[in-house]
Amino acid sequence: MSFDRLIENIVRTQNPSVVGLDPRLEYVPEYIVEKKIKKYGKTLKAASKAILEFNKAIIDEIHDICPAIKPQAAYYEMYGWEGVKTLTKTIEYAQSKGMFVMTDGKRNDIGATMDAYATAHLGLTEVGGELIPAFGADALTVNGYLGTDGITPLLEKCREYDKGIFVLVKTSNKSSGELQDLKLGSKTVYATMGDMCEKWGSDNIGKYGYSAVGAVVGATYPEQLSEMRAALPHTFFLVPGYGAQGGGAEGVSKGFDKNGLGAIVNSSRAVMCAYKKEECDPHDFAKAARREVIRMKEDIISFLPKIKLPD
Amino acid sequence: MSFDRLIENIVRTQNPSVVGLDPRLEYVPEYIVEKKIKKYGKTLKAASKAILEFNKAIIDEIHDICPAIKPQAAYYEMYGWEGVKTLTKTIEYAQSKGMFVMTDGKRNDIGATMDAYATAHLGLTEVGGELIPAFGADALTVNGYLGTDGITPLLEKCREYDKGIFVLVKTSNKSSGELQDLKLGSKTVYATMGDMCEKWGSDNIGKYGYSAVGAVVGATYPEQLSEMRAALPHTFFLVPGYGAQGGGAEGVSKGFDKNGLGAIVNSSRAVMCAYKKEECDPHDFAKAARREVIRMKEDIISFLPKIKLPD
Repeated sequence: MSFDRLIENIVRTQNPSVVGLDPRLEYVPEYIVEKKIKKYGKTLKAASKAILEFNKAIIDEIHDICPAIKPQAAYYEMYGWEGVKTLTKTIEYAQSKGMFVMTDGKRNDIGATMDAYATAHLGLTEVGGELIPAFGADALTVNGYLGTDGITPLLEKCREYDKGIFVLVKTSNKSSGELQDLKLGSKTVYATMGDMCEKWGSDNIGKYGYSAVGAVVGATYPEQLSEMRAALPHTFFLVPGYGAQGGGAEGVSKGFDKNGLGAIVNSSRAVMCAYKKEECDPHDFAKAARREVIRMKEDIISFLPKIKLPD
Repeated sequence: MSFDRLIENIVRTQNPSVVGLDPRLEYVPEYIVEKKIKKYGKTLKAASKAILEFNKAIIDEIHDICPAIKPQAAYYEMYGWEGVKTLTKTIEYAQSKGMFVMTDGKRNDIGATMDAYATAHLGLTEVGGELIPAFGADALTVNGYLGTDGITPLLEKCREYDKGIFVLVKTSNKSSGELQDLKLGSKTVYATMGDMCEKWGSDNIGKYGYSAVGAVVGATYPEQLSEMRAALPHTFFLVPGYGAQGGGAEGVSKGFDKNGLGAIVNSSRAVMCAYKKEECDPHDFAKAARREVIRMKEDIISFLPKIKLPD
């Protein structure tokens, strides 16, 4: 139930990190892009096919040492419906290799419309009596600004199909405080949202103590990570902002519990573009990605207790 | 600039309403769905082709009397990448008929990722030096929970390509108050978000006095519509919740200015499913949609001054 499958993947790989697959075309080695442009012209299709080849090669290299991927929907939408097709194929491929897939879409709406998003990303769509997965991720990031009406339809899919959501609580960006840090009486907006996550998840707690409703809390705010870890004992954290945005391994350790669980740390560009930083042969981009996944894992777990399932 | 093209469409049609194209497959007349299933099987492709035929027929019937459509991304994502292809084709078709298209995606992210969404929905994507529209809407709904970092990339696209955004301020749903009505000192969360809209739009005000940064304010909260209309003189409102959700024409009139401008009211299901309510021949679904558009327009403008461009 809930994030149990993710937690089991983390314990198996001893790696509490997730690779963000946010593939701008300029991250893809030129030889791949040129090959696709030769075949399909300078089109969104060529770009989308290049990105799919790139993603699959990275998944092939990391699936045994990394529990999950987090494709960011924006980078696929950027290439139109062809790009969205690549998102679908990427999700399918990663799941076929045993990885947990969290689509980073930050979707938000109400009632029937939120139900459509929940169906799209976590559920099954009906056509003439057939039930078909549209995207079929294991988890989805969502925005809770609209309140419970926007979250309820997701909770139903989480229960029905064993899926999870991550609600934005305290985001990693510089201006996140403009709204999120404002005080509602004695409590900040982000802490209020955090409390809502505990409440929304209370009906669906998995066997390792975490509910199906997780929270996004940025690596760039270690104090808030610490505060939220203490306040939200059943809420699993997705932690963006490690590396490029300035969050360090010691800081992100504040988001974990005494079993080295309770959080998963994202890295996107550092993994996808490891071959550029290493200045290695671009044909070795996937092996360079693997090396970066191992480096990041070692960095993060050096500040954590041994990762294990709770007694 | 900004919402000038939308405002000109509203004045030309004397109609401050927008049709939400949120086509669940069960809204599409059975004879269309059956025809597509016969051709493509019980697949997401069949559903997506049926929806496209439905949308085009409605656009054909209403483009001369209705200024804009608002396709809701969720209902297309529900049918996977084939559905997203239908969204693309729907946007293209409506624009070819002179309609203003606002994609209801409530997208939200930060920095480079928000830039990718902005490029996807409002800008042009580069592939090997070619610049290609991915979705090419005229406006996009967005969520401002992440602060200025999430909005800045959109403002650049608005300026560069003459587009607009609508930021969620006070949504139409019942639980919208859980967060949005909380008090930050003397000000509510929604009023704070409204102030941010005025600030974000201040550099890009069009010739009719409204900026490129609009706000979503629900028809179900006439008092807040009135409060926001007074507080945000340069912010154009997208008003959901009329009809099915309980918002009436007198209530929505609070969102308009003295020229009958400043707001556009959405209706989705009442238009798409007008043929069901009328119990007319399903083959006449598009003509029934036209009748509902006219009924709604007459209802709304009966509470407004004559719609005209400002002196």
